[in-house]
Amino acid sequence: MEYFDTDPVRLSGGKKSIIIIDQRRLPGELVTREITSAKDMYDAIKTLAVRGAPCIGIFAAYCVYVRAEHTPDGELDNELSGFAEYLNSSRPTAVNLSWALSQMRAVLDESRGLTPTQRREVLLKKAQQIHQSDIDTCEKIAEYGLGLIKENDGVITHCNAGALATSRLGTGLGPLLLAARRGIKLRPYVDETRPLLQGARLTAYELQKAGLEPTLICDNMAAYVMSRGLVNTVFIGADRIAANGDTANKIGSLSLAVNAKHFGVPFYVFAPRSTFDPKCKTGEDIPIELREGSEISTLYFERPIAPEGVRCLNPAFDVVPHELITAIVTEEGVLSVGG
Amino acid sequence: MEYFDTDPVRLSGGKKSIIIIDQRRLPGELVTREITSAKDMYDAIKTLAVRGAPCIGIFAAYCVYVRAEHTPDGELDNELSGFAEYLNSSRPTAVNLSWALSQMRAVLDESRGLTPTQRREVLLKKAQQIHQSDIDTCEKIAEYGLGLIKENDGVITHCNAGALATSRLGTGLGPLLLAARRGIKLRPYVDETRPLLQGARLTAYELQKAGLEPTLICDNMAAYVMSRGLVNTVFIGADRIAANGDTANKIGSLSLAVNAKHFGVPFYVFAPRSTFDPKCKTGEDIPIELREGSEISTLYFERPIAPEGVRCLNPAFDVVPHELITAIVTEEGVLSVGG
Repeated sequence: MEYFDTDPVRLSGGKKSIIIIDQRRLPGELVTREITSAKDMYDAIKTLAVRGAPCIGIFAAYCVYVRAEHTPDGELDNELSGFAEYLNSSRPTAVNLSWALSQMRAVLDESRGLTPTQRREVLLKKAQQIHQSDIDTCEKIAEYGLGLIKENDGVITHCNAGALATSRLGTGLGPLLLAARRGIKLRPYVDETRPLLQGARLTAYELQKAGLEPTLICDNMAAYVMSRGLVNTVFIGADRIAANGDTANKIGSLSLAVNAKHFGVPFYVFAPRSTFDPKCKTGEDIPIELREGSEISTLYFERPIAPEGVRCLNPAFDVVPHELITAIVTEEGVLSVGG
Repeated sequence: MEYFDTDPVRLSGGKKSIIIIDQRRLPGELVTREITSAKDMYDAIKTLAVRGAPCIGIFAAYCVYVRAEHTPDGELDNELSGFAEYLNSSRPTAVNLSWALSQMRAVLDESRGLTPTQRREVLLKKAQQIHQSDIDTCEKIAEYGLGLIKENDGVITHCNAGALATSRLGTGLGPLLLAARRGIKLRPYVDETRPLLQGARLTAYELQKAGLEPTLICDNMAAYVMSRGLVNTVFIGADRIAANGDTANKIGSLSLAVNAKHFGVPFYVFAPRSTFDPKCKTGEDIPIELREGSEISTLYFERPIAPEGVRCLNPAFDVVPHELITAIVTEEGVLSVGG
């Protein structure tokens, strides 16, 4: 890790549970929680204690393994396939969740000839491989991304696509964290990212820890900083990418992309190849999670800030059409998608 | 009033003080405050207890009169011209403040031949005239605006340009409130308007009171609702309009305008003629107020939501270039500005 004592998701010492950073408590407190039960695993994703598309994938893989450790030998197949289905329903948009779960189920199916102990071992190995692969992928993505910017550039980011959303360097934040590691100065602008403020709470926190000096803005100020020539590029992550390059990412990404196009600012998406979903031909095929309106009307889960009973519309994501994307950066390189 | 017991700004019964609705306390509490001293008048504007460009103008006019009531006869000219300068420095962007103050100073100057008591009377009369004129203006603006929409239209608004920002019907919200009065059904979408949430706190409150059924969204969701065809038009107010039609309004208006253009949604600005500032040739001449970063990093003045010490950029307004404006609606009609 660059600046945390622990990964956002890791196995406990005895490998019978998962230790997570509870991301709802940041930046006020860095609190870890130990998770073992299926219900706690589901809730951790649903409530965004664990969040960030790649991180959810890693977490889901470990979850399958840990549940295997707590499942009697004869019930492994039944129990784990039911569990995978249950966990997969916790959030619909990020494809990494279903991708990691299907990887784990494939391993489970292929291991039918082995002993239960051996099967648990191959599940562990697969989960660790998914985790390590994400670390490697993030390093590669960050390198490609760093090639797109130069010293003193203003870079605007949305939501959190850093260490807390992945492993280590992150996706959209990777080039910035890599720049920090190498002493290259940048000027990061951080969208606070309403309603759950992942930008203000997590990205500003990570960039500050990394020694960069972020400037926090409200989401509605991105056009202002672009119109004043303060930013050279936009870097965001992705939750699911359709075959044609249309990209689902945190709500507000579309507005940012439209403004970037208007002001002539390049707009880059950063994601592992596993974020592409060939089953979605275009963005119209990507399901958009609608969350509780109270996330908007009750500020940060505590204080009401709107009149009682007001209706809220709370889509968690929106889709950036590929025409508005300069390029998608994966571990394989910088991929132009016609933007 | 359509749905408040009191105007946001009015004289007390004895006419020696001003009663304001403290807009910082809404929607939780409808609290009025009585204001007499120069310092309290300055603070009421600075802290947004009184807000909304036209409402600030009305308030400023009453402030000059009330200060006259508390100023010894021989010191009227000196004292009030110093006071007007002081009050004018409370917020730089909204032109209505300096416009109303210059109207009151002109009356003060022209009344030099009268007795001090007569001078106070003409100041009172002028302030009341500015107030009444705003009521009439808002009615006319609302009528013109209502002609731009039809039953069941989706209308998106930003910040608060309703009864609390003006007198009675408001500017940007006027057509909606008039529609409510006439039983015409609309689908209002309300941008919450970070950082100070005037949309969530005030506009949603006003529309709800008026019997409309607003849908509250975060600012970054406007592109989403436009991309899904949910809105037919954008209605906003204005704090200052340059000679060429460039319009300064609450931060986030620019982003909304860029998105409206992209998605083919008409974008209308509503303001009294007095909002035009002929001294500003273009938007570049309009001063933009930068406010404390803590308004962003400390949510709703109370809870820290970003890491300690993070730098925030907090422009209170941005400028929508006239090319992005379909038309400006004043009490004189619907004025095309080349958008």
